[in-house]
This record gives sequence, C-alpha cells and structure tokens, in this order.
Amino acid sequence: MSQKLKPKKVADSKTVMTEMVMPNDTNSMHNLMGGNLLRWMDIASAICAGRHCEAYVVTASVDHVSFTRPIRLGEVVTIETSVTRSFNSSVEVYVEVFAADVKGGNPHRCNHAYYTFVALDDINGKPQTAPEVIPLTEIEQQRYDSAPRRREVRLILSGRMKLEQSTEIRAFFEQLS
Amino acid sequence: MSQKLKPKKVADSKTVMTEMVMPNDTNSMHNLMGGNLLRWMDIASAICAGRHCEAYVVTASVDHVSFTRPIRLGEVVTIETSVTRSFNSSVEVYVEVFAADVKGGNPHRCNHAYYTFVALDDINGKPQTAPEVIPLTEIEQQRYDSAPRRREVRLILSGRMKLEQSTEIRAFFEQLS
Amino acid sequence: MSQKLKPKKVADSKTVMTEMVMPNDTNSMHNLMGGNLLRWMDIASAICAGRHCEAYVVTASVDHVSFTRPIRLGEVVTIETSVTRSFNSSVEVYVEVFAADVKGGNPHRCNHAYYTFVALDDINGKPQTAPEVIPLTEIEQQRYDSAPRRREVRLILSGRMKLEQSTEIRAFFEQLS
Amino acid sequence: MSQKLKPKKVADSKTVMTEMVMPNDTNSMHNLMGGNLLRWMDIASAICAGRHCEAYVVTASVDHVSFTRPIRLGEVVTIETSVTRSFNSSVEVYVEVFAADVKGGNPHRCNHAYYTFVALDDINGKPQTAPEVIPLTEIEQQRYDSAPRRREVRLILSGRMKLEQSTEIRAFFEQLS
Amino acid sequence: MSQKLKPKKVADSKTVMTEMVMPNDTNSMHNLMGGNLLRWMDIASAICAGRHCEAYVVTASVDHVSFTRPIRLGEVVTIETSVTRSFNSSVEVYVEVFAADVKGGNPHRCNHAYYTFVALDDINGKPQTAPEVIPLTEIEQQRYDSAPRRREVRLILSGRMKLEQSTEIRAFFEQLS
Amino acid sequence: MSQKLKPKKVADSKTVMTEMVMPNDTNSMHNLMGGNLLRWMDIASAICAGRHCEAYVVTASVDHVSFTRPIRLGEVVTIETSVTRSFNSSVEVYVEVFAADVKGGNPHRCNHAYYTFVALDDINGKPQTAPEVIPLTEIEQQRYDSAPRRREVRLILSGRMKLEQSTEIRAFFEQLS
Repeated sequence: MSQKLKPKKVADSKTVMTEMVMPNDTNSMHNLMGGNLLRWMDIASAICAGRHCEAYVVTASVDHVSFTRPIRLGEVVTIETSVTRSFNSSVEVYVEVFAADVKGGNPHRCNHAYYTFVALDDINGKPQTAPEVIPLTEIEQQRYDSAPRRREVRLILSGRMKLEQSTEIRAFFEQLS
Repeated sequence: MSQKLKPKKVADSKTVMTEMVMPNDTNSMHNLMGGNLLRWMDIASAICAGRHCEAYVVTASVDHVSFTRPIRLGEVVTIETSVTRSFNSSVEVYVEVFAADVKGGNPHRCNHAYYTFVALDDINGKPQTAPEVIPLTEIEQQRYDSAPRRREVRLILSGRMKLEQSTEIRAFFEQLS
Repeated sequence: MSQKLKPKKVADSKTVMTEMVMPNDTNSMHNLMGGNLLRWMDIASAICAGRHCEAYVVTASVDHVSFTRPIRLGEVVTIETSVTRSFNSSVEVYVEVFAADVKGGNPHRCNHAYYTFVALDDINGKPQTAPEVIPLTEIEQQRYDSAPRRREVRLILSGRMKLEQSTEIRAFFEQLS
Repeated sequence: MSQKLKPKKVADSKTVMTEMVMPNDTNSMHNLMGGNLLRWMDIASAICAGRHCEAYVVTASVDHVSFTRPIRLGEVVTIETSVTRSFNSSVEVYVEVFAADVKGGNPHRCNHAYYTFVALDDINGKPQTAPEVIPLTEIEQQRYDSAPRRREVRLILSGRMKLEQSTEIRAFFEQLS
Repeated sequence: MSQKLKPKKVADSKTVMTEMVMPNDTNSMHNLMGGNLLRWMDIASAICAGRHCEAYVVTASVDHVSFTRPIRLGEVVTIETSVTRSFNSSVEVYVEVFAADVKGGNPHRCNHAYYTFVALDDINGKPQTAPEVIPLTEIEQQRYDSAPRRREVRLILSGRMKLEQSTEIRAFFEQLS
Repeated sequence: MSQKLKPKKVADSKTVMTEMVMPNDTNSMHNLMGGNLLRWMDIASAICAGRHCEAYVVTASVDHVSFTRPIRLGEVVTIETSVTRSFNSSVEVYVEVFAADVKGGNPHRCNHAYYTFVALDDINGKPQTAPEVIPLTEIEQQRYDSAPRRREVRLILSGRMKLEQSTEIRAFFEQLS
C-alpha cells in the first residue's frame, strides 16, 4: 500500500454525482440549504480523491464557496469533481455544481469550490503519498498551474504559513503595484 | 406543454448517479440492502426519464431484478441510466449498476434492470405523449429492437394482456419449437 | 445452525409492516416514489424470510412489479408478507401492499410482488438449507403450486437457464397452442 | 365530518408496525435509543387513533414509559397498538412492544405505554368528538375500566386537575388505608 | 473507571440543543410530531446525563409528557437539560422545551419532562455509581428535594414498588386528608 | 417588516447547537465526514442570523474551513454561533466547533468558520436591511473590526471585486512591504 503510485490522468478519477432535491434538504422557502450542498460536494469530491489516491481520504479543507442562485425543491443537481494537483499526501479537487428542473429545463451552473483531502494508509491511519496528477486539457493545465497559489492562501488562512513567507502570493501582489 | 416533442437521442438524457454506501443502507452483515439499491435505481432512472420526456414522470413498473454479488459498506455505487424506447406516454429506461471499493479498486458490474415511467402533464396530471427515442449505437439499437418483447411480458405479468394476444412472445416461442 | 429445520407453516412467519408516507418519501407531485415502496417491500419480506429460515437472509431477486394507483403523502401503507415455497437455500415471499388515508378511509389494494431470499449460515456466510413451507389455506396452496413456474421465469430472465431447458413454462405454452 | 360517529370495536383500528433496528437508531453500545422507540410508538399509536377517530389526530400526552431490556442493532421490533377508551375529543391508545432477533429467535416483550391523542376537524383544526370504544375481550374491558383512573393521574400531572378534585385516585387511596 | 466520582454541580453538565423543524419531522398538518420531540428530548438529556456521570448511559424511563401548543414546520426548537439528583447508578434529568419562529419571534415554552438514565461501566456493561448532584440555585434545590417523590411514582408505575411501601407519596396523601 | 430594525447586541442572537455523531454521519474510518459538519455549521449559523435579522435568511457564502483533528463516532459536537457585523442586507456569522467524548472527556476545539447570510423580506423574497451589530466584549470588537477585510477577500474570491479596487487588503499588504 505504501509504495509510490504512478502519476495519473485527471480523467481517471473524474466523478459525477446526481441528486434530486428532496423536502428535507430545503429551508422554509423551499430552496436547497447551503449546508446540504456543501455536504454533497464533500461526498462527491471525497469519492474522486479516493479514486485518484487509491486510498481512504479525509477532508482537510474547503476553500471559499459562494451561493448565488437558489436551487429549488425537486430540481436535479449534478456535481462534477476532478483532481487538479497533489502535494505530498494531499490532493486538491475541483468541484462544479449544475442544476436543472425535473424536466431538464432551465439548466444553469450554480457554483464551484476547491476541496482538499489527505490520503491515509489504512493499516496505521498515517498520511501516505498521493499520486501526481497529469493534466492534459487546457483547463486542467490552468487549474494545475494555479494550485500552488490557492495552497498558499489556504496555509495562510489556516495559520500554518505567514504572509511574509509566501512566494506565489507576494509575486502576485508585486506585479500589481 | 402538450404539443408533441421532437424525437431525441439516447445520449441527451443519459444520467450518472454515484452513491457511497452508508451504515443505514446496510443489513446486519454490512451489505447494501436490495431495497435500497432498488430505490437508488428508481431515482436515477426517473431523472433520466424526466429529462427525455421534459415532464414529470411516475414509475409504472420495474422488471425482474437479480442481485448476485453483495455490495459492501463504504463501497461506491455508480448507476448509469439511459432511455431505450417510448410507447405513447410511457418510456422504458435501462439501468446498469457498478460498484468499486472506496479506493476505486475491485470494480465490477452488479446488476441491471428495466424501469418504465409514464410522462404526466403538470397542469392536469394526465399522461402526455413521450418523445420518440433515436438509437445511434449498436447496443442502443439492440435495446430499442427488443423493447416491444419486454413490453409484452410486462403487460402479461400485470394482467393487462393475455398470452394468446401477444405477437412478439408467441413468435419467439414458435421459433424455439 | 446447519442441521435441517422442520417444515413450517406460512402463518408462523407472516409479517405486517405499517408505514406513514412522510414528505421525503414523495416526489414533486406528493406521491410516494416507486423506489421507496420497493425498499419497504424488501425490508418487510426480508423480515418474513428471516423468521421462516431462522437465519440471516439476503435479497436474491424481485420479480416484475407494477405501480398502478398513486399513494399520497400522509397515507398509511400496510405491507403484508408471507412465504410461499422454498427451494434448497432460497425462499420465495409474497408481498401485498394496501393503502388508506390517515383517517382509515378510501382503503385499497395497491400492488403485489414476489421477492426471493437466500438463507445464510452466520458463521461462514455460506447458503444454508431453508425449511420447507407447509401451505394450509387454498390461496397458500395456489401460491405454493405456481412457485416452480415463477422460479423458471426467474432463472431464464437472469440468464441461468435456457428457455429450452424449462419444463414448467414449455408445458404452459404447449397447452396454449 | 362533524356528525357523531357510531361506537367502534377495538379490533377495527388495531395496528401492527414492524421495524428493523438500523445503525442510526442505536447508541454507542449498539442498542436502540429510547427516544427512537418513543418515536415509533408515537407513529404506530397515531395511526391507530386516526383509524378509530376517522380524523387527523395530534399527540396530547404519553404516560410514564420504562425501558428495561435493551433492544439490539438488527433486531426486529413489533409494535401493537389498540384504542382503550375515548373521552370527548380524546382517545387513549395502549401500545405494546415486542422484539426478536433477525432469525425470529429470542422473542420477548419489551415494554408498554399509554398515549393519548386529540381528534381534529380537518376543516377548522378544532377538536371533534371521538367515537366511543366497544371493549369485547376481558383484557379490553380491563383497560376500558381503568382508563378514567389513568386519565385523572394525567390531568393531575399536567396541572389541569388538583389532587383534591380527583375521585378515582382518592377512592383508590382511601381503600388502601 | 469504577472509582467513585466527586459530587458535581448542575451547571457542569447543563446541555442546550437547538433543532430546526424539517418537513420529515412533521405530520400532515405541518406540526412537529410528538414522537420526534420525545426523541430529541431523549438525545439532549442523554448527553447531559453522560456528562454528569462521565459514563455511557441508557434511558431507563421517561415520566408523563403533555403536549399542549403545536410546534410548526420551520420553527426553531431549543431543548435545555440539567441533572436534578442521582440515586445509586441512576440520574434524573429535567428537560425543558422552548420554540420560536425562524425570525426569533413568538417565543414560548412548549413542555417539560423528567427522563432517567442508568450509568454503565464501559468495560463490562454493568451499572456503575452516578456522582451526586450539588444543587446551588433555588430551582435546582426544589427539583432536588422533589426527586424522591417522582422516583417513588416511577417505581410504582413500573411495578417495582407497591403503593403501600411508599413513604413520600403516602406522606403527601396523609397531609391532604 | 421592511422598516429598519434597531441595532442589536451579539448576545441577543447567540445560538448553541449540540449534536451526537451517529453512524450515518461518519465515513469508513468512523470519523465525522467534513461535509456533515459543514451542514450542521450552516444550520446553526442560519438560526443565529435569522434571530439577528428577524427574517428568513439564505446562505450567501462560507469562507475557508480547515479540518484538523478528526471527530469520532459517538462524540458530542457543540457548535456556537454569533453574529459579527452586518453589511446592508447581509450579516456575517462566526461559528466555533467543539467536541468531547460521550462521557464529556477529552474536550477540544475543532475548528471555526465565517458564514454570511442575506436577510429576505418574506412577502416578496427580496433582500432587506439587516440590523447593525453592537459589539460589547473585546473579542466581539475584534471580529467586528476585521469583518470588512474578510468581506473584501470574499468579494475578490467570488469575482465581484478586483484586487486593485480593494482598500483593506491593499493597506494590509503595503504595511508588510
């Protein structure tokens, strides 16, 4: 289990999850509650991360998520997840959410997010190395290239890196001034 | 709503649903209960039928389903559904179930089934015409061609047709003798 | 556990399950979803099969199920299950579904189905012999007598028997012509 | 709806509910949580009360409930409910709980309780008269006869009657001294 | 684990649980079902008892509960629980329920109850001594002082004490006459 | 409903939610799934925001959330939420999560997050002004003062503000260089 796995393509672990919005998923105004969507996004991206890492995974973080357009009771929600890049024992997953009414009408993109997971060795529960990600398409390459910047933001926001120590973010700001 | 819809390709309503087997989905031996799988298959194929018919749909029947290999707690179940053929206001959906462990290992085909749905007009709740299905691939064509035979079996089993009245099934038997 | 059990009467394992249709059990038109009913029927008949076999059981198959009249939100569903006949390690269960409104009004028979289960030895998880069924009433005798024919249909539909090998079904057809 | 209903026999509304104890119903020691059993008892007796009153009903009270022997994960719980006596717009329901393992082995009586419900007119939501109960068997007669005493205890415990005003309970105590 | 714990203050284990009433928690009239409230009260008071006893606990009983004012779909329910007194291995918990609409408006007290729990040793599952309760406020002292009377009622109602053997209740009645 | 509400203290809408981790809330390693915690945090902070705004609210966003220490099956999770500051029709809620085992042992802080909500007028569903927040304690004042900076990050991350337009964040960076 602990020998290093070969790098893998994004498509190898791509996951699609479809859910119908049931009454208990909604608030008093019959809209899907934000927390339920966060839960589905977590499950869909955990399955994707598990497939890529060929390991048990635990959620390490979720980045900023915005909710713009409400999703209504009875609508069908499609959640697409794909890995973007791995860092040691962690892997970042891009999650995109779409909805449409039960007749397939009025389809629209709802929101997106980045979740990160840590791969665990199932014998001792310790982190194990996640396989590298091979980006092939242009959009996969873009998400791969921007991953270190998102990672620095994450480390700063969780208090594990000081802003002064960052390289990606400082470079980004210096280019602005 | 009631004007006739144009024929549609199978791919236009194809639906993929992914579920992780949770503790409450399992029996005392930690295997997914058959009834829970039947429920997931029903939801996934109802979404597919709704997309094809662009209408609310209700389950009309499910054909014989066999359960062979048990699906374990924590495994990931993928349910793929696609329409095969429509008959007046009803549409038949082919459902195929796959499972793999949480690491993506040990993937296997679990079972398959045919569900039928009736499209409803959402103003008066009466059945409305389902669009015709355009089969493109070889397997889509096969399922399209064999649909009338499955339909006769269904009508006989639900007591709405006498065996003597069948054409497809009698022809099938006569060819055997 | 593995010694052969004595034949048992149908009444000894008869099971009645009553459920109230809750919001999450319904679709957008406030009718009980077909898949939820299939799930309840599976649990009720599994309990019945477990009582008859005095063993853990797993669902082996469900035969064709038709849904005719919708069951509404808030209605009370009564599911009655009884064994019909056993074959080696498997047992067939007859399931009948009734519904009425919450006041007990408008009672009606909804549908019926045949589920089959395999009895398992709980030490090694292997199939174990199911006790024979003793039919007493006329209707129990009818279901007992017709069980081999349903079993042949099941074996054919699941690809474990060729139509040419069947005895019950061929005899049935020959009598028609 | 508001015309007075004829008196009805206990057997006319008797209700049996069967549930299998699932993982989420249990506490950390894999025993059914008391609160889940109280919830099932409430649903089963509400169905029984609704059938007797031919009306929507709401829970008015539950009397003292003791939990003695734990019910284990995977066991089958059978809940039997029957009306005992009505008072104006309320009806008392006797609930009895049995459990057995999944093989039907080790059957035992778990506990019992008395729930009371108020029948509501579904047009204006006001209480409506509950039909009288006709006790036929000896045990039905016993529960019918002791109902006024339980009712007085209930009124006293909920602060709607003073102990000094009671007749049943005072008589009971005077007979003791 | 089995050494005796020091007496503890009521405030040390006080527990607050907040729940939003979801569609599946309600009956056909969109009111919270009594059984669901009993379940939440059981969980909230079990957490409180577990904290006080520093042990696994099981529900031993619930005293009479009245339901007066309905709680509506979408309302926010607040359940406050605190220990009152312990007796050997059992502890009594006072539960008080409040509700308000989702805007915080129309706040009101719904009902209250007494649950009792038995503390269990998690090595052998046998009852273990519950720590004594130290009442500090006036209301805590009142509930502490009246606990033996409620306990006698409980023992009598569950058939473990005869009315003639009671001391608290007989004294109470003699003072009335 | 649409007249402006008076400024309110943080304490007026503070909300405490307590949950016990049930089997279905956990992953294959018996730890609470991240997505379930996000869902509970969303409900607890929505209740808090609804109380402050005296209005229906919808989740607008959740900021970065890290998961460090796993929460185990059977543990008790306490979620404390309080408003920090309002901006027009939106309000920011600070969420803090604690866990302890079922005996109250091993208590620890798990994580924290900032959720934002929009207050809605329940007649036309349009955003309505949220009352201002009055911070009283030192920590309430700190969270109030830093809220505009978090808001700018949020606007930038959701693409509604360009980094060049920010005032808070640019000032922060200029002070670093």
